[in-house]
Amino acid sequence: MRRRSSLPSTDAYEDLSLLSPGPAGSPVEAATGDAAYVRAMLDAEAALTRAQAALGLAPATAAQAVTAAAAETGRYDVRDLALRARSGGNPVIPLVADLTAAVAERDRQAAAHVHRGATSQDILDTATMLVAARALEPVLADLGRTADALARLAVGHRDTPIAGRTLTQHAVPTTFGLKAAGWRSLVLDAHERLAAVRATLPAQLGGAAGTLAAFHAFAEAGGATSGPDPGPDPGLRLLAGYAAETGLAEPALPWHTLRTPVADLGGALAFTAGALGKLAADVLLLSRTEIGELGEGSGGGSSAMPHKANPVRATLVAATARQVPALASILYAGLAAEDERPAGAWHAEWQPLRQALRLVGGAARDAGELAEGLRVHPRRMRENLNATGGLIISERLAAVLSASIGRGEAGQALSRASRRAVEQGMELDEALREEPGIARGLPQEQLCELTDPTRYAGSAGALVDRALRRALPAGTRLGEASDRDATEQPPHRPEP
Amino acid sequence: MRRRSSLPSTDAYEDLSLLSPGPAGSPVEAATGDAAYVRAMLDAEAALTRAQAALGLAPATAAQAVTAAAAETGRYDVRDLALRARSGGNPVIPLVADLTAAVAERDRQAAAHVHRGATSQDILDTATMLVAARALEPVLADLGRTADALARLAVGHRDTPIAGRTLTQHAVPTTFGLKAAGWRSLVLDAHERLAAVRATLPAQLGGAAGTLAAFHAFAEAGGATSGPDPGPDPGLRLLAGYAAETGLAEPALPWHTLRTPVADLGGALAFTAGALGKLAADVLLLSRTEIGELGEGSGGGSSAMPHKANPVRATLVAATARQVPALASILYAGLAAEDERPAGAWHAEWQPLRQALRLVGGAARDAGELAEGLRVHPRRMRENLNATGGLIISERLAAVLSASIGRGEAGQALSRASRRAVEQGMELDEALREEPGIARGLPQEQLCELTDPTRYAGSAGALVDRALRRALPAGTRLGEASDRDATEQPPHRPEP
Amino acid sequence: MRRRSSLPSTDAYEDLSLLSPGPAGSPVEAATGDAAYVRAMLDAEAALTRAQAALGLAPATAAQAVTAAAAETGRYDVRDLALRARSGGNPVIPLVADLTAAVAERDRQAAAHVHRGATSQDILDTATMLVAARALEPVLADLGRTADALARLAVGHRDTPIAGRTLTQHAVPTTFGLKAAGWRSLVLDAHERLAAVRATLPAQLGGAAGTLAAFHAFAEAGGATSGPDPGPDPGLRLLAGYAAETGLAEPALPWHTLRTPVADLGGALAFTAGALGKLAADVLLLSRTEIGELGEGSGGGSSAMPHKANPVRATLVAATARQVPALASILYAGLAAEDERPAGAWHAEWQPLRQALRLVGGAARDAGELAEGLRVHPRRMRENLNATGGLIISERLAAVLSASIGRGEAGQALSRASRRAVEQGMELDEALREEPGIARGLPQEQLCELTDPTRYAGSAGALVDRALRRALPAGTRLGEASDRDATEQPPHRPEP
Amino acid sequence: MRRRSSLPSTDAYEDLSLLSPGPAGSPVEAATGDAAYVRAMLDAEAALTRAQAALGLAPATAAQAVTAAAAETGRYDVRDLALRARSGGNPVIPLVADLTAAVAERDRQAAAHVHRGATSQDILDTATMLVAARALEPVLADLGRTADALARLAVGHRDTPIAGRTLTQHAVPTTFGLKAAGWRSLVLDAHERLAAVRATLPAQLGGAAGTLAAFHAFAEAGGATSGPDPGPDPGLRLLAGYAAETGLAEPALPWHTLRTPVADLGGALAFTAGALGKLAADVLLLSRTEIGELGEGSGGGSSAMPHKANPVRATLVAATARQVPALASILYAGLAAEDERPAGAWHAEWQPLRQALRLVGGAARDAGELAEGLRVHPRRMRENLNATGGLIISERLAAVLSASIGRGEAGQALSRASRRAVEQGMELDEALREEPGIARGLPQEQLCELTDPTRYAGSAGALVDRALRRALPAGTRLGEASDRDATEQPPHRPEP
Repeated sequence: MRRRSSLPSTDAYEDLSLLSPGPAGSPVEAATGDAAYVRAMLDAEAALTRAQAALGLAPATAAQAVTAAAAETGRYDVRDLALRARSGGNPVIPLVADLTAAVAERDRQAAAHVHRGATSQDILDTATMLVAARALEPVLADLGRTADALARLAVGHRDTPIAGRTLTQHAVPTTFGLKAAGWRSLVLDAHERLAAVRATLPAQLGGAAGTLAAFHAFAEAGGATSGPDPGPDPGLRLLAGYAAETGLAEPALPWHTLRTPVADLGGALAFTAGALGKLAADVLLLSRTEIGELGEGSGGGSSAMPHKANPVRATLVAATARQVPALASILYAGLAAEDERPAGAWHAEWQPLRQALRLVGGAARDAGELAEGLRVHPRRMRENLNATGGLIISERLAAVLSASIGRGEAGQALSRASRRAVEQGMELDEALREEPGIARGLPQEQLCELTDPTRYAGSAGALVDRALRRALPAGTRLGEASDRDATEQPPHRPEP
Repeated sequence: MRRRSSLPSTDAYEDLSLLSPGPAGSPVEAATGDAAYVRAMLDAEAALTRAQAALGLAPATAAQAVTAAAAETGRYDVRDLALRARSGGNPVIPLVADLTAAVAERDRQAAAHVHRGATSQDILDTATMLVAARALEPVLADLGRTADALARLAVGHRDTPIAGRTLTQHAVPTTFGLKAAGWRSLVLDAHERLAAVRATLPAQLGGAAGTLAAFHAFAEAGGATSGPDPGPDPGLRLLAGYAAETGLAEPALPWHTLRTPVADLGGALAFTAGALGKLAADVLLLSRTEIGELGEGSGGGSSAMPHKANPVRATLVAATARQVPALASILYAGLAAEDERPAGAWHAEWQPLRQALRLVGGAARDAGELAEGLRVHPRRMRENLNATGGLIISERLAAVLSASIGRGEAGQALSRASRRAVEQGMELDEALREEPGIARGLPQEQLCELTDPTRYAGSAGALVDRALRRALPAGTRLGEASDRDATEQPPHRPEP
Repeated sequence: MRRRSSLPSTDAYEDLSLLSPGPAGSPVEAATGDAAYVRAMLDAEAALTRAQAALGLAPATAAQAVTAAAAETGRYDVRDLALRARSGGNPVIPLVADLTAAVAERDRQAAAHVHRGATSQDILDTATMLVAARALEPVLADLGRTADALARLAVGHRDTPIAGRTLTQHAVPTTFGLKAAGWRSLVLDAHERLAAVRATLPAQLGGAAGTLAAFHAFAEAGGATSGPDPGPDPGLRLLAGYAAETGLAEPALPWHTLRTPVADLGGALAFTAGALGKLAADVLLLSRTEIGELGEGSGGGSSAMPHKANPVRATLVAATARQVPALASILYAGLAAEDERPAGAWHAEWQPLRQALRLVGGAARDAGELAEGLRVHPRRMRENLNATGGLIISERLAAVLSASIGRGEAGQALSRASRRAVEQGMELDEALREEPGIARGLPQEQLCELTDPTRYAGSAGALVDRALRRALPAGTRLGEASDRDATEQPPHRPEP
Repeated sequence: MRRRSSLPSTDAYEDLSLLSPGPAGSPVEAATGDAAYVRAMLDAEAALTRAQAALGLAPATAAQAVTAAAAETGRYDVRDLALRARSGGNPVIPLVADLTAAVAERDRQAAAHVHRGATSQDILDTATMLVAARALEPVLADLGRTADALARLAVGHRDTPIAGRTLTQHAVPTTFGLKAAGWRSLVLDAHERLAAVRATLPAQLGGAAGTLAAFHAFAEAGGATSGPDPGPDPGLRLLAGYAAETGLAEPALPWHTLRTPVADLGGALAFTAGALGKLAADVLLLSRTEIGELGEGSGGGSSAMPHKANPVRATLVAATARQVPALASILYAGLAAEDERPAGAWHAEWQPLRQALRLVGGAARDAGELAEGLRVHPRRMRENLNATGGLIISERLAAVLSASIGRGEAGQALSRASRRAVEQGMELDEALREEPGIARGLPQEQLCELTDPTRYAGSAGALVDRALRRALPAGTRLGEASDRDATEQPPHRPEP
């Protein structure tokens, strides 16, 4: 708000993430900003002219001029484009005008080749896929980092006992390692789904109604003599060349109203938000004041209440998990898009998809910080395990006592002892020792062991070991080759 | 993108409505921008200190200093606040720091009174209600304008015949006036719902856990001797005073986790989006190339396809109707907010509510332009009415013929004639004249009249007349007193 | 599954609420079953013929025959109707065939008057409104009962201290009475919204395309001589008479594609689900094993785990709150219904609306049982209040100490003491007594009182008193006059 | 309603698909009925005992008795189970009681082994996966059948010209074959996604808190001497054996609160609904009275309006596409499930998942009928192509004329001619011939060909050819091996 003397004013419209503390300042935020969309649209336009030049549908000089003019990012005023987008309903129309002017300054002839044969949706859809591909890079890295941190927690606490809780109540013991391994398995599921979608994000090119007919007309008109033989179908050849220029996958068909890529993105993002939401939900519960088994590494403080350490990261992740499923429902509904370009369904995708990318980007970063900084308090876990005076172990006792003194008698004795334990505030093993049938059937030492809540973890350890054998797919991790792409090499080829 | 040499860069995160051609440049866009939220948060802080001063809980000089510092909009850097919001999870925390510094420059003593006794949610919730109140003003005006334009269409085309269509097929005739009156009735329903919600938007004040306890402590500590007697409950008195200072309604209870106002806003906005979506859906269908009964006043053109006049306004409205219901579902789900402040449900409201306001704001403006500029083609309506060769009138014929020649014979004759008409491409009245039973039972002249699709509008005219007698509530229309508020007098009292 | 020898078989399709333990066996379940819809459709058909007879558009004997045949519920086979509904896409078509046959058995002439002039949607929409009106009766009663029980809790625990919790952490104290009063205020909000919608549920009648034209044709054909003068517009007169016969409100316009009543129902039901979900969310947290401040009166037991008392009622309410907002989003999206009857949007309303009614009906009953049976444990509330060793009161101390020893010194002393308290496990007042500045500024006795967490409830009591002064509107409560309607007098007039 | 004398009554609660004409009477309806869930729960219980017997944790006689008692479907009363489910909140609890009684009648000892060591969620989750696996079989078959019919349409109409429409307006020509190939590609995408999810649906077994601890206790108590050596981890061995007995996949971890399978199902079902919704949306538009290019094979008739042939199948598919995305959003939100069993999120999955399966099952059947019976009217397609007097071809003309007479002159001439064509109702080629520049640049014969809308399909044919080379994966089609599973071999092994 520097530079502004009063509010609201005409330049007060901006969304600078004031209400989005999750993604604020994250790589995904920048990768999905309006400027990133403009960048990606320009990349798409340049790729289109280059691909046409490669087939002899445009002169090589035009490809050079368009590529150069598209690179002059400073020329394009995002806000001005946004306002001019209103009349035709999309931002490609004014951007093409500006790009054409920029090209004309360099090469008058080349200007005729800007956006030639394309429709606005070709450019905006391609740009959206480029934005998604670029934005998912740091998301995948953050998920990998989260999974690594959770793996360390699972290993380190493989046998740390903690109360298993169902429907809010203590059930039987489990281990914190198993909880962490479970969180990690969801994070890996999310990574898998996002990586699979990302690997197939397609370029879009179909022309006015998805037949690529204009490019046939150009070939027809030009005789296509200035370049190599365009072959039997110039449309398909151009589609392949264009996809290669953008670095995106080649679609089998133009997908103006076959919205599989967008729906798949929506589903994978909703999945990821939910998967991270599970981690957040558990952290929020286990760090409640009365439970205190976990704590965020850097809880948000409160000046008036020095004892408060708010679980801010988990809160923001939980907020994301509440939003993205609804956004995905908009994208799934968009599949039912009529005609060769729908009047509404396509426009309704833009903001929800961008917002889903941003929210998930913020949540992945937050989850990484949360997992890496998580403070674990095994002592509190132990104390809480004892909160029911041993009752948490009653399932085990029932099984073992049934075998030694019979199911009927075991059940009754256990029932009486449990009631006494609750009512008189005694430990369950004490109460059991007063049961004649039990004292008879079970040596005291064994009773002690049987009622020890830390010795009833079943297959927890074996499950952790098995779960940890699952790894992220090679080449999709932070620090590996593909990771350099995130910062240095975007998934498209920016220059011919 | 002026001022930027490359992309994506760290300041490329902004959302400048590139992907939101609906609200781009609208008053609602500015009224809901990040800067508008900052403005509203500052208004809330200033109101709080003034209300405390009025009760003797703060010196009058503090109220003056805070009010003055809050007015210096230029001091507060929205992006910086957004980034600093990350650590504590909300933007109020850094804003209070900046406001405190600004106040201290004016009056060192006064700085201690900034935000005193409040919690972040008090300020952000109040600000959100202020933003909503301000943003709804132009929305209501645009709905009024839309309703007026639709009323003119309903009057002007009270008796213009048009095919009634059910499940995509011609059914029986109706009138365009009745369609317009129906659209208008939905717009009035939306206006009613939004105006009712707007009239009760409450201020928020509860302190750390909704008990207003801190203000009791201040009263206790200060003896509250410097002002008028605070009365039996300083908390309730302060709540009333604060609400009055903000211009918002006084809530019965602090509503940190009683989210009625937010859920009601969500519902009314989803309703409005859907109501306008009905208008858009019909315009989109009736302006299809083959139907051509309606046209947008200023269709978006296409350079390559000069015959195209895209219904851009209707498209953007339709896109809004596809998004807001899902956003509202997030807000309704937020009602189930735990504790005295929830870890996630509250944060999950911020962007969906703002986005719903923006989208509806854009749609209301677009609907206004659409309704005011709508081109109506009664000739095409007539031509299309005849598309089934008179069959559209068969319901009427069946009724009248049954009365004259008996239900059984009438049905059979009509059935035969209809089949012949369809198969041989003749008009229905011709085919009917060949039916001996009908020729016998009905004079030719009457048959002609009976098969005239323009003379079977039933109660359409009477329904239009009745629907038009419903008016917008006084004082809520464009051009009336309250309208001046939109530009000159925000619904809060900015100065003590 | 009695009567069935193998599974899955052709009659295994039924939904008998196996997966809906919330509504199973509730009055709302029966009021929204398929048979209830058939009943309501028959009521609508009978009302239509009676209304026509009253205007001379049908003989009085036809009205009698249709009313009598419609009353023979046993004649109509729901499953058979469901299967036959497939071909035309709605259940009215086969029902009209069966009703016509039933009428013909009584009075051959009368058969021609069944469904005369109506369209399927007239009947199904009217039936849906009748079902909603009948189903909401027990919902409103259960909400009233819930509100009463919560009022008793609020009164009884007006001053019972409990930890106020924000973002999962103890913040400052509040009272359980204030929590209960807050829950009640949401329940009253829900009651208000549902009662308002219920009071205006309209009958539907428009004929094939919403113009009521067929009834004009009948009047025309019949000369309408057999009854009183139909007046200037027979359509409007019939609409009024039909609405009166059904007991529903008269709509201003036929609303085949003006879906305000359905959208409003959706919104009010989503609101109610969310409002009850807040109660459930808090009960679920406060009855967690480690917190133990609340307990369901009759928790679901577990044979293997005798210490478990699952909060089943709260769980089912919470499950409802997670579903209804999404169902409502379908209904809001249905507002954008094209033409005079949409191809999909109308059909998409049926099950979501019924399911929302059922779920909310189950949740209202569960909430009533929950509220009436809630066990409150003030001792545990006290113990938990002390969990932070007095830190929960630090806000108050800061205020009071600032006044006595200055803001700066007070802050530092409090900070030091808090840290010492946490690290050394001492009580905060002890730690404070070791601070020289504080010992100097504050008598020990006052310090004791200041750190007592039960004496810092601020306006909680006053807020409870104020909230309890709000009552349910007269005539909408269980036990009052309107309540008899629920069992004895359905909101329609079944007989002329 | 046979057998019932009055309504509403206590047995009027049933949902017999009266409001679900889509799935009514379909295989998926039966496969997802309450009885099918009971069947699947019994299958799960029997599988559990058999798996324990195989590891020596239960006698072989117990496995036989439980399997036999579970097969006596007629013993279990679904409605009674539904009502008794209320108290504990799920239907497994009463079913276990009934199954135990049934087993005890056969073998008193065996009764102790019913459900031993399991938790309700183990059984209900496994049953849900069995139900999903069984229900998806006919869905996949119907999708295959739909894809086949669409392939025939694509081949048969590979070169049938039709107007390409964007934003409701004619754009440039395309072919009906390309439209059909596009619909098919979405259907194949849906098949792929559903088949992939179906192939990995896992059994569920974890015991009280997901550690399988009870089975360790049994092994411990029994010494596990009566069978083969249980190996190092009896839990994991049992999990593998149990999964094999059910015919479902073995999960890496118990997934009580790792809801990947449910979320994936939700996503794939929403995708399928949307994919079929695209087909429906196009059919609904192209069969509108004024367009008439397509017609449903067996449109729903209307007695009063003989010209009406309602596109009922498409309408019901469109209604499904409007519902499932919102249902999926509930399932995605369920991922954020707290603890070892959540209080609400799990229960909130049951009905939405079943309803999504049913709706998609109905839509797949409807889509199959729609595609197989679709009537295509190439003559109307041609007539409509000419609706703009040749303007639909202007893109092509611009390209070719630019090459021959220069871009500037070509654009102006085309613009003038187009305007004249629209205003004076002449054909575009006539108007062009009056343009001197064009007459000069282009022989009349070529102009004729250039303005022929049927000769501008670009790559449409090549795209169709390419799209048709994609096939359904082997073994997933109707008539192939796996298909026998649908009727003869359910994916579980019902007998040991």
